[in-house]
Amino acid sequence: MGVISLLSDFGTLYPAQMKAVILGINQEAVLVDITHDIPPQNIKAGAFALMCSVPYFPEGSIHLAVVDPGVGTTRRGMVVKSGGHLFVGPDNGLLIPAAHKLSDNLEVREITNNGLFLNVSSTFHGRDIFAPIAAHLSNGMALSEVGTEILDFVELDLGTPLIENEKVAGEVIYVDDFGNIITNIPGELLLEIVDYGDLLDIAGRKMPLEHIYSNVGIGEGLAIIGSHGYIEIAVNSGSAAKLLGYGTNNRVVIHKVL
Amino acid sequence: MGVISLLSDFGTLYPAQMKAVILGINQEAVLVDITHDIPPQNIKAGAFALMCSVPYFPEGSIHLAVVDPGVGTTRRGMVVKSGGHLFVGPDNGLLIPAAHKLSDNLEVREITNNGLFLNVSSTFHGRDIFAPIAAHLSNGMALSEVGTEILDFVELDLGTPLIENEKVAGEVIYVDDFGNIITNIPGELLLEIVDYGDLLDIAGRKMPLEHIYSNVGIGEGLAIIGSHGYIEIAVNSGSAAKLLGYGTNNRVVIHKVL
Amino acid sequence: MGVISLLSDFGTLYPAQMKAVILGINQEAVLVDITHDIPPQNIKAGAFALMCSVPYFPEGSIHLAVVDPGVGTTRRGMVVKSGGHLFVGPDNGLLIPAAHKLSDNLEVREITNNGLFLNVSSTFHGRDIFAPIAAHLSNGMALSEVGTEILDFVELDLGTPLIENEKVAGEVIYVDDFGNIITNIPGELLLEIVDYGDLLDIAGRKMPLEHIYSNVGIGEGLAIIGSHGYIEIAVNSGSAAKLLGYGTNNRVVIHKVL
Repeated sequence: MGVISLLSDFGTLYPAQMKAVILGINQEAVLVDITHDIPPQNIKAGAFALMCSVPYFPEGSIHLAVVDPGVGTTRRGMVVKSGGHLFVGPDNGLLIPAAHKLSDNLEVREITNNGLFLNVSSTFHGRDIFAPIAAHLSNGMALSEVGTEILDFVELDLGTPLIENEKVAGEVIYVDDFGNIITNIPGELLLEIVDYGDLLDIAGRKMPLEHIYSNVGIGEGLAIIGSHGYIEIAVNSGSAAKLLGYGTNNRVVIHKVL
Repeated sequence: MGVISLLSDFGTLYPAQMKAVILGINQEAVLVDITHDIPPQNIKAGAFALMCSVPYFPEGSIHLAVVDPGVGTTRRGMVVKSGGHLFVGPDNGLLIPAAHKLSDNLEVREITNNGLFLNVSSTFHGRDIFAPIAAHLSNGMALSEVGTEILDFVELDLGTPLIENEKVAGEVIYVDDFGNIITNIPGELLLEIVDYGDLLDIAGRKMPLEHIYSNVGIGEGLAIIGSHGYIEIAVNSGSAAKLLGYGTNNRVVIHKVL
Repeated sequence: MGVISLLSDFGTLYPAQMKAVILGINQEAVLVDITHDIPPQNIKAGAFALMCSVPYFPEGSIHLAVVDPGVGTTRRGMVVKSGGHLFVGPDNGLLIPAAHKLSDNLEVREITNNGLFLNVSSTFHGRDIFAPIAAHLSNGMALSEVGTEILDFVELDLGTPLIENEKVAGEVIYVDDFGNIITNIPGELLLEIVDYGDLLDIAGRKMPLEHIYSNVGIGEGLAIIGSHGYIEIAVNSGSAAKLLGYGTNNRVVIHKVL
């Protein structure tokens, strides 16, 4: 009861206004920032960060997530219930991978109960709509109070890498603060065509698949299955993003060096 | 009861020491960071960030704010009471715009009760003076315990842009993490000489005044009344600060393109 | 009771997973970030930041700190009890200076009770081992439940600068967000050979030792005993790190200009 996580691309100035609104409605709320440093307007990166984090939160948690390039347009706001967690945010796909991670059984409601809103600005629904909704839900408000159920919400998947000719092709979905390049290639998928210790060709560079960073020399590259379960390109005690010049959306092809 | 917000230019290392001191005095305190990334020593930017955020906090909140280039000099410390909120920080203007935003009726007291201080360093009054004062106030200590009332505190306004010859001139007071350039020009003031949809000349560039970011193409500039009520120069899915090379204190003249 | 501080080099994405795990075990825990912006893999900088912060936390606090280049290797995890505080993290020296700061009397236990762990990844022991251990300890679990006492833990000191020929030589251990360059030279040590107001030669540049930043002109350099008690090279309203191009591990020799 009472945990509300927050995720956005807002940086440092705006998240406090959402927290202030929440505490005005439920002062017992336990607020936990996931991150507010999602690259601006990058819905996929936000969806990935949310999906990685949510499974570690206790049942009953509410996740308020806002990466919202369409704020002020007709894009809908929504609440998703999945696996005993609630998600509040825009209907642009951001919440979907995390919700699916918890369960296949989603209940999705459009937010229409404007009696719960603050005076609504055209640029900050995180504060004016989503924060009060999350706070009222944390106070025990019934989900049905939010609005009516919808089925035609925006889907988002983070890509479905496939193996073809002993190669797997995916894309970069996140670069973490170590400079680790996180791809959308599930670790188990890559393990169908390579083994730990094998030398891989990743975007034209050679590096081994390892269990731990320090299995290669300092400054050397490696592939690793990250703590999130996805293939990550890393440099021991260095930044793979700097070394490779990679960012989100870059395509990555991996195969074994024969 | 018990919400304490924190704002500073301290970055990442020092805020925890203030929080630790507060929790040592009042472990029930609910701590909310506004931001600790105010540009170093930029009192106006800090005052703006505080002013934007404070109205969303519940009555009874205490705001501990420290942007303090004069730390260790004879500048005074103070507590301001306004609109049911308390503000704690240096007497350099930082707290004033936020306090005035809540009410015209300020009670200001110099902090002189050194029985409440930690051993005072010459460089970190946030930790040694302001944090314990805020914590004791959150425990219900009477405001009069802080010190005597003063009337000659340092005033600060964020500038008073005026319309002249159908032009309005203001200045940049904040650049947010999207790269949005926030001016001190109130939205309603600009609306006296232009309408939504009009093409504006802003510092020599042409851009329209819009309700929402996505009314212009990706990468294109616009003016918008931000969620704080001030004119903001923005780029849809981009950084206006990068595009224009603007920072705080830059002057901005806006007029309608005829 | 129930304060848990968190320190790491994780940046923004990963700390929330540790907090989520903790709140799943102890929802009453009061979580306080020290910083997650320790330079990657820089154990000394992390040890310094922890040591500066810990003395301000109330007795009974638990400090979860992870700067862990050896994650996944045979390096041990440990809990340290010192001065009524508990520290949880890797056995690589990170926790030691902070623990010694509180008391000379350390009780150190290796973490071996894997019944308390999550499914352990090879790259994120902060989440899978240290967070649950910290949470269970905050719930009152006996320290002896963690594992057996050890005496051969990894020591770390932050260097022991010495005076020789009226010069003191130390090194940079931290650069804060103001760009202040913090050395491992204790203020009292330098005061054995110089006085406040003296002009110093610091790495070939001349600057005075001052009590407060604003005793020199804006943009000018000074030495100061920081709020942490160590000699800091600073620039009034500017960044010494930018001016001098200094980072952690740079050597610093200081002597009085005669």
